[in-house]
Amino acid sequence: MDTAGKVIKCKAAVAWEPNKPLVIEDIEVAPPQANEVRIKIVATGVCHTDLYHLFEGMHKDGFPAVLGHEGAGIVESVGPGVSEFQPGDRVIPLFISQCRECRFCKSPKTNQCEKGWAADHYDVMALADSRFTCKGKKVLQFMGTSTFSEYTVMNQIAVAKIDPAAPLDKVCLLGCGVCTGFGAAVNTAKVEPGSTCAVFGLGAVGLAAVMGCKDAGAKRIIAVDINSEKAEKAKAFGATDFVNPKDHNKPINQVLVEMTNGGVDYSLECVGKVEVMRTALESCMEAWGVSVIVGWTDMHDIAIRPGHLICGRTWKGSMFGGFKSKDGVAQMVKAYMDKKLMVDEFITHNMTLDQINNAIDLMKDCKCIRTVMSVSPQ
Amino acid sequence: MDTAGKVIKCKAAVAWEPNKPLVIEDIEVAPPQANEVRIKIVATGVCHTDLYHLFEGMHKDGFPAVLGHEGAGIVESVGPGVSEFQPGDRVIPLFISQCRECRFCKSPKTNQCEKGWAADHYDVMALADSRFTCKGKKVLQFMGTSTFSEYTVMNQIAVAKIDPAAPLDKVCLLGCGVCTGFGAAVNTAKVEPGSTCAVFGLGAVGLAAVMGCKDAGAKRIIAVDINSEKAEKAKAFGATDFVNPKDHNKPINQVLVEMTNGGVDYSLECVGKVEVMRTALESCMEAWGVSVIVGWTDMHDIAIRPGHLICGRTWKGSMFGGFKSKDGVAQMVKAYMDKKLMVDEFITHNMTLDQINNAIDLMKDCKCIRTVMSVSPQ
Repeated sequence: MDTAGKVIKCKAAVAWEPNKPLVIEDIEVAPPQANEVRIKIVATGVCHTDLYHLFEGMHKDGFPAVLGHEGAGIVESVGPGVSEFQPGDRVIPLFISQCRECRFCKSPKTNQCEKGWAADHYDVMALADSRFTCKGKKVLQFMGTSTFSEYTVMNQIAVAKIDPAAPLDKVCLLGCGVCTGFGAAVNTAKVEPGSTCAVFGLGAVGLAAVMGCKDAGAKRIIAVDINSEKAEKAKAFGATDFVNPKDHNKPINQVLVEMTNGGVDYSLECVGKVEVMRTALESCMEAWGVSVIVGWTDMHDIAIRPGHLICGRTWKGSMFGGFKSKDGVAQMVKAYMDKKLMVDEFITHNMTLDQINNAIDLMKDCKCIRTVMSVSPQ
Repeated sequence: MDTAGKVIKCKAAVAWEPNKPLVIEDIEVAPPQANEVRIKIVATGVCHTDLYHLFEGMHKDGFPAVLGHEGAGIVESVGPGVSEFQPGDRVIPLFISQCRECRFCKSPKTNQCEKGWAADHYDVMALADSRFTCKGKKVLQFMGTSTFSEYTVMNQIAVAKIDPAAPLDKVCLLGCGVCTGFGAAVNTAKVEPGSTCAVFGLGAVGLAAVMGCKDAGAKRIIAVDINSEKAEKAKAFGATDFVNPKDHNKPINQVLVEMTNGGVDYSLECVGKVEVMRTALESCMEAWGVSVIVGWTDMHDIAIRPGHLICGRTWKGSMFGGFKSKDGVAQMVKAYMDKKLMVDEFITHNMTLDQINNAIDLMKDCKCIRTVMSVSPQ
């Protein structure tokens, strides 16, 4: 059946309001407009940022919405002016666009794009515009992507074309978690060979950061988590040490400073908690430590003593691992296909879209690394 | 009269307790011990960090002390094992040492030295050891230097030998303020040609930061101060714009973001107030702005929304402008002698050591840029 140019009715998991389970609904997905691409989502991961929006961020203007931003799929149809894509292309939707024309895209200093939602709307986490309706109401596209839907519509500046041989139920994780963690180490922290690193939080992002530190040649990678069951997995990704703060009766930054004769060279916060962000900074070598905030939160201020920066530390943040999104995803998919990047190892559970609330519970309870949801058949 | 090997009795301005005027006292300065140099201080600047210790920092273990850390003088005698200096050498005492042997000195990433007081004692701002006594009591050497004294004793790792032709009553300012501000722009922020910068606070450090931005080739340098009388001076040092926050009825970071189409590339906080540190960071371009904390304070936390870093900003601090101290001071004195660096222009007042409390009042009331005190005759 040719669906091009027509409204598609399909299933999606709708977040009607904060703090409530998602509801599988029949939604209407409008045809792509100028420069837009309609994508059949084949698989999607569930990431903590989805939960953040649902349970913490909860901006009043952010509902109803379809969450999900770590998906992969197949182009169903394209709108006027789209030259880069055609139906059948295998793609990954991007929550940071890459228009290649704005001053941000042209600068090597940032992976932001002035034309994407993230440039202005990260507080709401969705643009005002959407191609979704449900029961007569407009439904927002969370982070522009909304991969918890059988179909979504994206501007072509926010879609990466990938190797058609890549397994979508694996490489979907390159749409967020794996690139975010890996890139934070490689691109943002710029971890150097022989250095000592600490990674706080061993979810998918943290494990990917561990993998990034190893790829960059770090000599010592200290993985930190309050769940000791993560130790083995962390070592599989390259960690040399595991530290559980609960095993110590002094602040964990002090433990790390003592373990490393003054602090680590690089620390990566992959939890999304302001206290851990401070701890990560304070775990760094005073004279030159670089601490990167990777976990997303924006509800509360982070704080630090000025002296902790003045003496020589650097505090940075990383969004999507500092990758220019189209270029980075293509490069990471290639690395995976060349067997230079672990991805399968992040997947602990496989489910279908109608089990989305189970997947969310697993993540809330820290019982999974990544659950991949099968959304549409290929 | 040969004083080598003998205790010297001389005048010094002693801070007996916080929040009280300094008292000119006769103190005893012991002969230099192994690897130490006794220096006759000829001239010294008064810097806000002296006031910070006296009126804000006030660590209980920090008194009595002789303040002053922006001096220049002549070597009077040297202790055993000193090969780098001899009596008569013109020198600048350094509050950050450069031993050239520790892992910090060997790293290009920091200007700290593990052997100096600053590595551990910046909270107290003095080592426990001292060569000063007064009325039978040990008197601490603030920041190791204590330039508000006719004589002081320093380890040779914290003394820079300078061009004997350099005027000590000018180049003393290279012992702190001018290097601190200039280097923060050039070494720490690494200001790039063609960039846009903002400098908050137009004391000597801020004006030196303006000069550093100009030297680095910044296209636009926005000087920010709540005292509009500073505008003219700032322009003399290279500022292209002056903004007084009191002239605006919205937050000054918003004013700067609007003036610069999104924020400055580099901002430098040269005030030492936590609110200004936040404002300086928020004035930076979200996607790539670098904000450097230069003004010293360590009483309160600085705070920021995580999103303001995650989206692409970098927060750093700078101590002594990131200069390796011996190398940097020698290089900056040479630049001054070669007429490539303004120094005289910072000096608004000249006094003698017995007028120290007047000089402190001038600085507290923001009535000066730099006062240079004549301490000992040459």
